[in-house]
Amino acid sequence: MYNYKRIILGLVYRDKGELWLVKVSIVGATGYTGAELVRFLARHPEVELVALTSQSYVGESFVDVYPSLGKYTDLLCAEQDIPKLAAESDVIFTALPHGLSMEVVAEAARAGKKVIDLGADFRLDDAGVYEEWYKVRHTNPELLPEAVYGLPEINREKIRRARIIGNPGCYPTSVTLGLAPLLKSGLIKTDTIIIDSKSGVSGAGRTLNLGAHYAECNENIKAYNIGTHRHLPEIEQELGKLAGGRLTVSFTPHLTPMTRGILSTIYASLDRPLSQEEATALYREFYGNEPFVRVLSAEQLPQTKWVAGSNYCDVAVTVDPRTYRVVVTSAIDNLVKGASGQAIQNMNIMCGLPEKTGLDYPGLYP
Amino acid sequence: MYNYKRIILGLVYRDKGELWLVKVSIVGATGYTGAELVRFLARHPEVELVALTSQSYVGESFVDVYPSLGKYTDLLCAEQDIPKLAAESDVIFTALPHGLSMEVVAEAARAGKKVIDLGADFRLDDAGVYEEWYKVRHTNPELLPEAVYGLPEINREKIRRARIIGNPGCYPTSVTLGLAPLLKSGLIKTDTIIIDSKSGVSGAGRTLNLGAHYAECNENIKAYNIGTHRHLPEIEQELGKLAGGRLTVSFTPHLTPMTRGILSTIYASLDRPLSQEEATALYREFYGNEPFVRVLSAEQLPQTKWVAGSNYCDVAVTVDPRTYRVVVTSAIDNLVKGASGQAIQNMNIMCGLPEKTGLDYPGLYP
Amino acid sequence: MYNYKRIILGLVYRDKGELWLVKVSIVGATGYTGAELVRFLARHPEVELVALTSQSYVGESFVDVYPSLGKYTDLLCAEQDIPKLAAESDVIFTALPHGLSMEVVAEAARAGKKVIDLGADFRLDDAGVYEEWYKVRHTNPELLPEAVYGLPEINREKIRRARIIGNPGCYPTSVTLGLAPLLKSGLIKTDTIIIDSKSGVSGAGRTLNLGAHYAECNENIKAYNIGTHRHLPEIEQELGKLAGGRLTVSFTPHLTPMTRGILSTIYASLDRPLSQEEATALYREFYGNEPFVRVLSAEQLPQTKWVAGSNYCDVAVTVDPRTYRVVVTSAIDNLVKGASGQAIQNMNIMCGLPEKTGLDYPGLYP
Amino acid sequence: MYNYKRIILGLVYRDKGELWLVKVSIVGATGYTGAELVRFLARHPEVELVALTSQSYVGESFVDVYPSLGKYTDLLCAEQDIPKLAAESDVIFTALPHGLSMEVVAEAARAGKKVIDLGADFRLDDAGVYEEWYKVRHTNPELLPEAVYGLPEINREKIRRARIIGNPGCYPTSVTLGLAPLLKSGLIKTDTIIIDSKSGVSGAGRTLNLGAHYAECNENIKAYNIGTHRHLPEIEQELGKLAGGRLTVSFTPHLTPMTRGILSTIYASLDRPLSQEEATALYREFYGNEPFVRVLSAEQLPQTKWVAGSNYCDVAVTVDPRTYRVVVTSAIDNLVKGASGQAIQNMNIMCGLPEKTGLDYPGLYP
Repeated sequence: MYNYKRIILGLVYRDKGELWLVKVSIVGATGYTGAELVRFLARHPEVELVALTSQSYVGESFVDVYPSLGKYTDLLCAEQDIPKLAAESDVIFTALPHGLSMEVVAEAARAGKKVIDLGADFRLDDAGVYEEWYKVRHTNPELLPEAVYGLPEINREKIRRARIIGNPGCYPTSVTLGLAPLLKSGLIKTDTIIIDSKSGVSGAGRTLNLGAHYAECNENIKAYNIGTHRHLPEIEQELGKLAGGRLTVSFTPHLTPMTRGILSTIYASLDRPLSQEEATALYREFYGNEPFVRVLSAEQLPQTKWVAGSNYCDVAVTVDPRTYRVVVTSAIDNLVKGASGQAIQNMNIMCGLPEKTGLDYPGLYP
Repeated sequence: MYNYKRIILGLVYRDKGELWLVKVSIVGATGYTGAELVRFLARHPEVELVALTSQSYVGESFVDVYPSLGKYTDLLCAEQDIPKLAAESDVIFTALPHGLSMEVVAEAARAGKKVIDLGADFRLDDAGVYEEWYKVRHTNPELLPEAVYGLPEINREKIRRARIIGNPGCYPTSVTLGLAPLLKSGLIKTDTIIIDSKSGVSGAGRTLNLGAHYAECNENIKAYNIGTHRHLPEIEQELGKLAGGRLTVSFTPHLTPMTRGILSTIYASLDRPLSQEEATALYREFYGNEPFVRVLSAEQLPQTKWVAGSNYCDVAVTVDPRTYRVVVTSAIDNLVKGASGQAIQNMNIMCGLPEKTGLDYPGLYP
Repeated sequence: MYNYKRIILGLVYRDKGELWLVKVSIVGATGYTGAELVRFLARHPEVELVALTSQSYVGESFVDVYPSLGKYTDLLCAEQDIPKLAAESDVIFTALPHGLSMEVVAEAARAGKKVIDLGADFRLDDAGVYEEWYKVRHTNPELLPEAVYGLPEINREKIRRARIIGNPGCYPTSVTLGLAPLLKSGLIKTDTIIIDSKSGVSGAGRTLNLGAHYAECNENIKAYNIGTHRHLPEIEQELGKLAGGRLTVSFTPHLTPMTRGILSTIYASLDRPLSQEEATALYREFYGNEPFVRVLSAEQLPQTKWVAGSNYCDVAVTVDPRTYRVVVTSAIDNLVKGASGQAIQNMNIMCGLPEKTGLDYPGLYP
Repeated sequence: MYNYKRIILGLVYRDKGELWLVKVSIVGATGYTGAELVRFLARHPEVELVALTSQSYVGESFVDVYPSLGKYTDLLCAEQDIPKLAAESDVIFTALPHGLSMEVVAEAARAGKKVIDLGADFRLDDAGVYEEWYKVRHTNPELLPEAVYGLPEINREKIRRARIIGNPGCYPTSVTLGLAPLLKSGLIKTDTIIIDSKSGVSGAGRTLNLGAHYAECNENIKAYNIGTHRHLPEIEQELGKLAGGRLTVSFTPHLTPMTRGILSTIYASLDRPLSQEEATALYREFYGNEPFVRVLSAEQLPQTKWVAGSNYCDVAVTVDPRTYRVVVTSAIDNLVKGASGQAIQNMNIMCGLPEKTGLDYPGLYP
């Protein structure tokens, strides 16, 4: 079953019984995206977890922090000692707040390791744009040209050869996968794109803040950061590449009373006539072989719960003949395809493993 | 405190001790909008509830159906005997599925009673449009010209003189209040309006269906009826009146995991430059004296929970200088301002009572 | 309508137009129980809110902290200046964490004001018990003898004459009202009482903590502090008084995924035979005239949502003939009958107002 | 990795490429427990799904009914043709309402197939007790003696040899695993057992009913069927076997606002002194080698979310020295360890497969 080539792309696999395993460390493992990495990697048949670092829980058993993972790892939370991690690991995931990954990534990359950064520090091509939106100086702009934006459906070949991955943000993942077929085919007016996204609360992470306090966000929906969310330049960068030119979009994120999931509803005016059948066919063809994209018909629109806990992106395109607009709906689990699952998908590609390895689970429904 | 004139607009008030009370019946009282009417009317200082009809619970105590209202009414659920209701009542509320109100309203109006229909049968001016979207023949189109669309902020004077009120739909209420200031002032391009609405599950009523099953909609968000929802012609009719001409909009409703609330996020391109300050000032002026509209600043966007259980519509307008668009967010409780609260507001106006009577409650937060 | 005597119990009412109003201050108004006090008191026909203090929001508009209360108060958040508050107020509510009320209450009481403390500092008769369970020294034990435990259904007459009220905890309210009829009538074996309570998350207050983080407690139930919760000595003290002797109970609180509500399920062995009819009749008689207790039949067990937002306690008693046990279920809104509503009920009693004034609302259902 | 013996226990495995797979059919696959079976079995490395039957969806693609399972099965919903199923299958799961499995199980067993019934028809040893509690005549009482109660932690050896499994109910699973160590060791007074269980709504299945309507059960907790729930005789039967004699318990189920999960809080008086350390050690020893039971310490009580989507039962025992009682808390996912996961665990045992095969997933947290 696991008969693919094991010595690949310069990674040195070590012997552990009869299996060669990829040694993996996670920097910032006790946040939600870190814990999701552990959830998948602890069962990944080609991976050995060697270190999990934490700021707040050094010395504690990881399972005491996340008892849901009891029986799946014996690791203790370790300090963030990058040289040590680099010495022990083939691949390092960084799951840190923006601004904190830059140096870690640089150090790990200098040590010759593959690094996948789940934060924002290596997503934007232009350090100036990063600094403008994130209000932090980028200390390692020289690495940006080689960092690859880790959206496999678009950049698979670049990811295969990459040393540094800027793992996409959750909103940009749902939006870019939602619009790619239309943008690539030039069917929509790029100045009419309006993106209305609804996110579960886990997208705000595990750090305490009033906006994620149960009593404040249960039974409640609000828009926030209208036209000013930090994922906006990332969205425009990636959509622009697909469209072959700069574009400006409206993007409104919403906080909704669920733990996991993003649904993006995306509106654009058609540039030329398109039937419903043609539209769905376009998507089906574009994503035909993708392991983690499911194109639904317009009769069966995506629901976040259908992808909960899974690495799938479900997408449907609806043509509205009354308004000559298309309405795309795209659903992901923000912590999986929007973060940790996609990061592992990238790792699989970088390590020459079958892309679905360790990620091949359906959504948890109901 | 209650020193306003009691004999008004042709209503005959009866003596009940020292107070003159408006006698009120509710047809279809055991659905959610019916129960909300009871919740407010049972405490309304100028109202006496005389009859509550039901299909499924005839003969049972209303409080056995809604124990939350224990100590607030002794009425039993009655059969739907319109002549009897008309004889006993000054005002009749009909809270029935579409298609079932037409005859009831006609009969009650013929008996000289004021009728407020919470369904869709008297909202659309054109019987043909009604029949096209609701797939039901309108049996009383002759009454449509006199039926008034019961949105007090727009039609207060007509409501005052009305005999039949078509009480607005929940989505149309949130959308019309959200856009009225911009449309009235001609500041937006009317062919660019895109409405993305998020509704709680109670909007689907109490009738059982898989889409409202807890396990199906908890932790789940989906769009539905993209560009085909029955509230669409109602929205376009009312927005068109405000804009002074026909218009076509994109409207996407979403089902979200909360019981009460609608948040509408509305996008439109500006027709001429407008600053954030001007935009907010426009809304503040437009709604300055309104008892049930609160204009928030763009720094404090509406949240559905701030209006939960109340008759308020909270609205904010955000100018996005990057895209030359405005983004309006508008929050209501779908069962109150989106249905029963608004119906009572209409009743107050029709009966010459102070508009806030019996409705003057803040939202339940948290 | 408001024709009861206005100069009562030594309170000096001031003239404000034709009405005499009770002047009220809230110390710690920006927590959830503080905001609930404002929600009710801002509409209380006999009350004028004169000051709202806060630690974190001094100088800000209260409505900016709780926009749900927009149009209901113009007050700014004030510093905690007790002499000033005492000079301006007839009644002072303290809604502070335990340990912080003692001095405030003492100072206000010394100034001759009525004080209702929503915290734990004046609930326990014995300072030693307080200090053992709360790990804080009680600085004003001399006031404990005059402080009245503010459960109106049990202590109404004492409350009427009280200067200091220790407002009951949320769990003890649901438990004491649930068991009072059985204990008073001596029908159960007092050493067999087991209390299993389920609380919404708002009971933990607005202070940030991981246990109240949305993603941690949504879709999740857990027991906590088994046999060690701080409400335990309060429960045993009050149940003991009803039983006429010391008793020891098992008490297990649970955190459940809802914002508001406590359901207590209480088990006890019968001391002598009791039929279902007798049991329900006992409760109906005991609570016959109570404005805020509704005794349900065993066929219609209490649901927390039936009392949401209201001051009601719904209670039912079920006799289980298989085990010779009774099972009592008792539902309250933890922020209303479990805190702020009950505090206002106490205020009404202390001020000679009709007990339901400003509190006469049904639950928000659905 | 899968090097265990493949020809076992009389099952005839068929060749499919290099693997021999167990052919499995599910009768009643479109309910929640049916869909959970598909979720696990579609990825089970030793299983081939051959048929999924349905009442309502015959001829439709199973994935159209459960789009969350898209890419995991191509099967259409089939009619319930038992001879055909029996001919094609090695193992048949029946996931039908009580009363409907009896004949199906009998027919499949007669055809020499292994049958695992997720309903109640083969759980109770005594047909009379079944008929008393379920109000249905048992048509195949002659099969009851050979039917094995499928709780692997207790009955593993019997399951290994069984032809018919009565798969345990969700509540009884959580309760029996919670009490087994104490009952086996005779440490508690068996007439003092009180069980207070809290269940998510999916336990009521996918069939529409008002109690599972979102607006009715969201933000709501209630007890139901106090002392009369149909799982009660099952609980007493299994606890009695562990205790070595008849016993009578109090059992109160509660409906709580979450989709998945059961937390049972179980109280009992100690028969002799027991320290906290001894109690936890007892549980650790009892469940030491169990693949799907995790014994937590009393400092880290079970949470339903830690087991969501997984086959684990998390259990902790707390000794309360004040009352000489133990309080056991036990958490499962009602659809997994409480139904479909346990059924597959039974299948694994019956087929000689490693018990964790296809079930080895941690909970989905957050």
